[in-house]
Amino acid sequence: MLTGDQYKASLSDGRATYFEGERVEDLVSHPILGPAVQNVADGYDWLATQAVDGQSPLSGIPTSPQDLRDKVDLVHKAGMMAHVTYTSLMTLTTAASRLSKSAPQYVDRINAFVEDAQRRDLRVTQCITDAKGDRSLSPSKQDDPDSYVRVVERRSDGVVIRGAKLHITAASFGHELMTIPTKAMRAGEEDYAIAAVIPVNAPGVKIINTTYAPRHDDLRDFPVSGIEHFPEGFVIFDDVFVPTERILLDGEVESASVFAHSLGLWERLGGLSSMADGSDVLVGLAQLIAEANGLDRVGHVKEKISEMIIHATVVRACLEAALTNAETGIFGAVFPNELYTNAGKYTGAANYNLMVRHLHDIAGGAIVTAPSRADLENPEVGDLARKYMSTRGDVDGEYRTRLFHTIRDLTADAYGGWKQVTNVQAGGGLYAQRIVTRKHYDLAAAKGAALRIAGLAESEGPSGGF
Amino acid sequence: MLTGDQYKASLSDGRATYFEGERVEDLVSHPILGPAVQNVADGYDWLATQAVDGQSPLSGIPTSPQDLRDKVDLVHKAGMMAHVTYTSLMTLTTAASRLSKSAPQYVDRINAFVEDAQRRDLRVTQCITDAKGDRSLSPSKQDDPDSYVRVVERRSDGVVIRGAKLHITAASFGHELMTIPTKAMRAGEEDYAIAAVIPVNAPGVKIINTTYAPRHDDLRDFPVSGIEHFPEGFVIFDDVFVPTERILLDGEVESASVFAHSLGLWERLGGLSSMADGSDVLVGLAQLIAEANGLDRVGHVKEKISEMIIHATVVRACLEAALTNAETGIFGAVFPNELYTNAGKYTGAANYNLMVRHLHDIAGGAIVTAPSRADLENPEVGDLARKYMSTRGDVDGEYRTRLFHTIRDLTADAYGGWKQVTNVQAGGGLYAQRIVTRKHYDLAAAKGAALRIAGLAESEGPSGGF
Amino acid sequence: MLTGDQYKASLSDGRATYFEGERVEDLVSHPILGPAVQNVADGYDWLATQAVDGQSPLSGIPTSPQDLRDKVDLVHKAGMMAHVTYTSLMTLTTAASRLSKSAPQYVDRINAFVEDAQRRDLRVTQCITDAKGDRSLSPSKQDDPDSYVRVVERRSDGVVIRGAKLHITAASFGHELMTIPTKAMRAGEEDYAIAAVIPVNAPGVKIINTTYAPRHDDLRDFPVSGIEHFPEGFVIFDDVFVPTERILLDGEVESASVFAHSLGLWERLGGLSSMADGSDVLVGLAQLIAEANGLDRVGHVKEKISEMIIHATVVRACLEAALTNAETGIFGAVFPNELYTNAGKYTGAANYNLMVRHLHDIAGGAIVTAPSRADLENPEVGDLARKYMSTRGDVDGEYRTRLFHTIRDLTADAYGGWKQVTNVQAGGGLYAQRIVTRKHYDLAAAKGAALRIAGLAESEGPSGGF
Amino acid sequence: MLTGDQYKASLSDGRATYFEGERVEDLVSHPILGPAVQNVADGYDWLATQAVDGQSPLSGIPTSPQDLRDKVDLVHKAGMMAHVTYTSLMTLTTAASRLSKSAPQYVDRINAFVEDAQRRDLRVTQCITDAKGDRSLSPSKQDDPDSYVRVVERRSDGVVIRGAKLHITAASFGHELMTIPTKAMRAGEEDYAIAAVIPVNAPGVKIINTTYAPRHDDLRDFPVSGIEHFPEGFVIFDDVFVPTERILLDGEVESASVFAHSLGLWERLGGLSSMADGSDVLVGLAQLIAEANGLDRVGHVKEKISEMIIHATVVRACLEAALTNAETGIFGAVFPNELYTNAGKYTGAANYNLMVRHLHDIAGGAIVTAPSRADLENPEVGDLARKYMSTRGDVDGEYRTRLFHTIRDLTADAYGGWKQVTNVQAGGGLYAQRIVTRKHYDLAAAKGAALRIAGLAESEGPSGGF
Repeated sequence: MLTGDQYKASLSDGRATYFEGERVEDLVSHPILGPAVQNVADGYDWLATQAVDGQSPLSGIPTSPQDLRDKVDLVHKAGMMAHVTYTSLMTLTTAASRLSKSAPQYVDRINAFVEDAQRRDLRVTQCITDAKGDRSLSPSKQDDPDSYVRVVERRSDGVVIRGAKLHITAASFGHELMTIPTKAMRAGEEDYAIAAVIPVNAPGVKIINTTYAPRHDDLRDFPVSGIEHFPEGFVIFDDVFVPTERILLDGEVESASVFAHSLGLWERLGGLSSMADGSDVLVGLAQLIAEANGLDRVGHVKEKISEMIIHATVVRACLEAALTNAETGIFGAVFPNELYTNAGKYTGAANYNLMVRHLHDIAGGAIVTAPSRADLENPEVGDLARKYMSTRGDVDGEYRTRLFHTIRDLTADAYGGWKQVTNVQAGGGLYAQRIVTRKHYDLAAAKGAALRIAGLAESEGPSGGF
Repeated sequence: MLTGDQYKASLSDGRATYFEGERVEDLVSHPILGPAVQNVADGYDWLATQAVDGQSPLSGIPTSPQDLRDKVDLVHKAGMMAHVTYTSLMTLTTAASRLSKSAPQYVDRINAFVEDAQRRDLRVTQCITDAKGDRSLSPSKQDDPDSYVRVVERRSDGVVIRGAKLHITAASFGHELMTIPTKAMRAGEEDYAIAAVIPVNAPGVKIINTTYAPRHDDLRDFPVSGIEHFPEGFVIFDDVFVPTERILLDGEVESASVFAHSLGLWERLGGLSSMADGSDVLVGLAQLIAEANGLDRVGHVKEKISEMIIHATVVRACLEAALTNAETGIFGAVFPNELYTNAGKYTGAANYNLMVRHLHDIAGGAIVTAPSRADLENPEVGDLARKYMSTRGDVDGEYRTRLFHTIRDLTADAYGGWKQVTNVQAGGGLYAQRIVTRKHYDLAAAKGAALRIAGLAESEGPSGGF
Repeated sequence: MLTGDQYKASLSDGRATYFEGERVEDLVSHPILGPAVQNVADGYDWLATQAVDGQSPLSGIPTSPQDLRDKVDLVHKAGMMAHVTYTSLMTLTTAASRLSKSAPQYVDRINAFVEDAQRRDLRVTQCITDAKGDRSLSPSKQDDPDSYVRVVERRSDGVVIRGAKLHITAASFGHELMTIPTKAMRAGEEDYAIAAVIPVNAPGVKIINTTYAPRHDDLRDFPVSGIEHFPEGFVIFDDVFVPTERILLDGEVESASVFAHSLGLWERLGGLSSMADGSDVLVGLAQLIAEANGLDRVGHVKEKISEMIIHATVVRACLEAALTNAETGIFGAVFPNELYTNAGKYTGAANYNLMVRHLHDIAGGAIVTAPSRADLENPEVGDLARKYMSTRGDVDGEYRTRLFHTIRDLTADAYGGWKQVTNVQAGGGLYAQRIVTRKHYDLAAAKGAALRIAGLAESEGPSGGF
Repeated sequence: MLTGDQYKASLSDGRATYFEGERVEDLVSHPILGPAVQNVADGYDWLATQAVDGQSPLSGIPTSPQDLRDKVDLVHKAGMMAHVTYTSLMTLTTAASRLSKSAPQYVDRINAFVEDAQRRDLRVTQCITDAKGDRSLSPSKQDDPDSYVRVVERRSDGVVIRGAKLHITAASFGHELMTIPTKAMRAGEEDYAIAAVIPVNAPGVKIINTTYAPRHDDLRDFPVSGIEHFPEGFVIFDDVFVPTERILLDGEVESASVFAHSLGLWERLGGLSSMADGSDVLVGLAQLIAEANGLDRVGHVKEKISEMIIHATVVRACLEAALTNAETGIFGAVFPNELYTNAGKYTGAANYNLMVRHLHDIAGGAIVTAPSRADLENPEVGDLARKYMSTRGDVDGEYRTRLFHTIRDLTADAYGGWKQVTNVQAGGGLYAQRIVTRKHYDLAAAKGAALRIAGLAESEGPSGGF
């Protein structure tokens, strides 16, 4: 296992990474990107304290629903980078299992990579979403043939790829880019059916970072994003050579979607799990600020919080159902249930904005107008600001101010906006989850039930009831 | 176990039951109420085929989550009357368990009644909702003191009660009325804290029936309600004597709500389970009629059906979570999880109307304007009607007409209206389920999570993540 | 102007009309259809009292927004049949104006028919929706070429048509069937581009009636639909000859949609106007039953009623905006604004189910379980039923029972179901209104505003503000 | 009229204003607050070009609906500060009209102030929301008696006030603080029934500023908030003396709510008008980004945009109805209709989050991950970034990037969060608008309509129809 310091050192490998128009010379010491490095390093050090037989607890694959449940908890605690890495490796494991018939030649290579990455305690990010060009056209019909990552040259010992992958969380902060096709490919699109693992510092890899990290002098006003933020990478493959042993698919168009579907499942499980917890946090904030405002016994406020509670409970019920009804793949690995995972992720994302509206409605305008921490300390107005931010003898003005800051940071500022967008977009937009849910729902059984109730098919039992 | 015929005979016991202004002399042969009797009789005969050691499979109490799951399925198949009876007896069992500390003197009496009722294979209905008078006033403050059922006289061998219970499904068709307080009572309301089991034919019991049963000559146009319908009873206790051994609570105001909460749990589980199945039926109908209309590949139709699928899946996820997280009471009986049961029941009821709107939007106006079955047989216009109700060579006009009849019957006619109202009202309105969900949600934990994320409390692990 | 009695006599003209498998020999005396005849007759007699210079006040065309507003009110008061007729004639007037360039040869014929119909005080219904077959195929691609009404024979003095028109409100009760194409036609579909006015008693016209009229013995339990109900006609053109002077379009495919669009506008205006009034009725019922239940001061009940009020106000705002922004056609006739009419109709229909859910949630289960009026009069239980349906000294049990009956009749019984379906389907489903709203919305202006705010186009003024 | 430069000079008046812990020495040159000053100055200069007889076009009061409509447009164009000032002065005019009976002694004083402010071309902000303490307690019951602004000392020539006003848009950038009670007061709360106009530089006035202004080096990535942002003021009255002639209410508790109601009306009109325009901008952005993504012909995308269009149209319909049904006060001034204004404001705010979700769903993750403008100019990756941000030959990568920046800035960043919160909170939360709509809705008429339809009251006309 790597220590935090070893991780930091590993980033000085010549990677080409950019931020707001400048190439970043040193990630570790960068004023805005540096804290993300530290966060990953802290995660390494914490995981070391949880080691099992000297192995990272992230290693291995879950083989029972309870195992899966434990991993979901562990990964959630271990932070974004561990989460991303676990999702990548589970995606590869799932894909290997699914490719065993259609493209068996890659199975060993995939499993070997997973084993090696776990052994070397690497961090692996997921490069899936292509630039995509005109969404109404397939990859081979685009004005720019590079709109989807593709092979532009074949050599005896590997291939050269070109294209870009967007919205790659923490791309600049990992070691390997798990690069996979974003969707199914058709005959004639063989060059686009390319999957590979590529080192971040491979020549030709260039990453532009964007981040919701606050730029304010005093990060105390950003209790969440001021502490943890992970840049998104815009990853460009500017003619990158990939040696054969790192190619995980090359030209098998009929298997191109296997990786995306595998990732989709794990990403949505992660999303669902994080929404279940996040919904509880929203409920908690709503209740805390209602109490601090003296509104916790007011009818319409209680109604709104009850609706938030029901939302949080329903999202968690989907997670429960997804884990309880987990399915076992051919190599014994356990996967969350697709149906409940997708329906839950959809529900969490689709109702999120309404929950935020309730929170804003309960909390009030001070979400965006509460004084800063520095104002509370100013000798001329600090006492007055605290006095007027207090609402009762037992509600401290600074405490209430900090609740407002938290609500703003989570739901009404740069990080809140990022969250709102990624809630909907992570794992594909709402539409994608509708499609997958539909695909896994037993529509034939539902039609049968409808025909029976209509008297147009044989029924069982005496009456059944609607 | 009773046979269907024995059940029918048992109804000739002098019960005073009324329908649309007339006293019903013979339930069995009544043109509108008679079919409900036959339905119960059929249920008896079917259960006989499922007997276990000569006992009704409804007997016994579930002692494991799987047991509970099996019972839910069985009861669902066995029809409304078996469902109502099972709910009554589980309510009493649950209440006995919960009263063991606060009012232990009733525990044996309750358990004895349950045992006896199971042994004699009786049907027991739930009398809970009082007339209630002015909802803003407590029982003892009403203009009419009988607005809630109460003890009006005490004798050495029992009590005399007066009042009314409303919306009592199938009250006229069972043997016993499980009569319980509708809510918590306060000191001074001892006379209202009365629970008892009362034979339907006890002197002074008068039941007015209402029903959504169709009155049309040709019941084929009502494929669901034409076959199965259960009248609701407006049960009046016009000074009814209850002997001591049938009194299950009398004056212990602090325990008055135990019965209602116990019933609420089982009623909502029944509601949730029936909504899970009913949602699948709605999905099935939407898909079938979309196919019959040639619309199943149209984008916005698929979107609506996908939304219906997600609704059905989320409701079922709550049922799954409620059963998987079942709790065990002190006597070993297993109860569904309150939190998930209530959140699921709420979600099913709250979104039902939108799902029906989607179904109507997909199906079209023929839901309410499709010709009758008799029209399809008329020699002058029958062929023409079938011709124009067909949409393709492979879609039979009569088949499609019957789908429309089913949709109308389920969602846009008297039964549909009953369903819409009872979806919301069964087990208490939406508000009641909000309150119960809130009560069982771990609000303290949610507040703790919010405080941690706000930096106002100790956190665990390296970062956690929102 | 016709008297009610003259109207009744006019129906004995040999029309072939059917109901539940039987041909109707005499509409006037038919037990279920007869009341609809009487309703139309009463409308004639009432309009006679409002005559202007011996002319029906329905005559003429509106030439100012205020005129239009007055007509909308008048037609609403004059009952369904007057409303239907007015809509038909305004549709023809609007179509004439719109055809003046593309198909001028029909303009005089259309205007002559309108004038004649107004002079003879006829009732004219709208035959638009075809059987439609497979919705994914155009008329000429159907398995059955008669899925859309079409010309099957051409003669020197006219044409013979075949096909069916569905959901034709009151078709059997008018004098003329305004028969128009249901949608745009393409080259090659000339035979389907047929519009005509056809007498109800023309040989080959056969109408199957369906109705939500209650079949109960005591219609007092149906305070709305027991008094007013209008059957829907399934109109079959079984090779009907149409003389040339009654043909309003024949083969001009490019003009086929003009009639449907004209009808759509007036039908949606009617729908919007009726929804505005209907929403107020729902609010009124919610408030009355809340008061009768003693719930009118409870927080969550007030919230729900406030939401219903906002819904009613928003729907009326759309009607206000549609009338205030009325547009003037080339012949001086004033038409409601398409944009606001469609957005309002959509909003009214889309939120209707939620408003009904609120009403049901407030009112309670007695909507479907309140005793009948006859029960209230029964000597044994009538007093008791009234006693327990009362909630306070000042709330009469019968009054409250009748409120429940009204709510059931309007929202949870056969008429309620019809209303729910037709709210969505009248004037085309929700999708149709989305399309029309989109068509009339100034999307270019919205894009311009977006580009200006993005700094991608020239702005006016100093800042503008979002 | 003032010039922009005169305005800037007028700010050097000793005002005590603070930002992030520091007192601001010079507003004009402040790096973050300075641009707001410049914005106001530009507004002055633009209005000078629109002068009427040397008077600011903001002067005068509207005396016809058309007048009102013109002012709404003008004020919208003239920028936030002109808008705030106009709202203040209209509030005072409305209040004067409403106080003419209950507190006539203040009418002349109010009108004189309005006239003087218009003559001197001052900017006046609205100080309404108090700190409020525990929301469940009235002002006189608070732990801290200063939770609501109050008179703490009375002198012969005026009063001394203490307290704070929160969320005061642009408070530091105007000349006068229109300070009014936030709500109705009761007997015993005379000291809280205080209204006054107070110069920003009055001794004891201290203002803490907060702002959503971006802190990034390159403001081009913030096309909206980088150009226009207005700090919110946390205004503290630390024992401020108010001379008698500037007191607009003092102790008349029964009139205390008149100012808040007057402000509420104008603020909601402003909110409604800005939402109507803002909704069009959202529609425009959705359509532009759908086109740039190649998604504008995809079914579910069109559905979402149609829903956004209907939302925008409904909000505008409410504005239309509010202006068309404007009411005239006793002095001839015209006020927007309360009912439609409030219902429209509610609808705009309540559905805003859903519209934003649609926009995010259509646009995709690049809203928060698109490269910065500087990245597009970087010599190493700029060309590549533009290449991959382009989607077709005719969609420029920079253009599309800037659309994403705009969407982020408006809906998913600090300004977007501010907007989301203030949409709900401006003019009081959703609850406040429910209450006001309810108050102005004709509930008696709705009840009458319901009673007529129920047959429980006399009806007019022959049938009416539901």
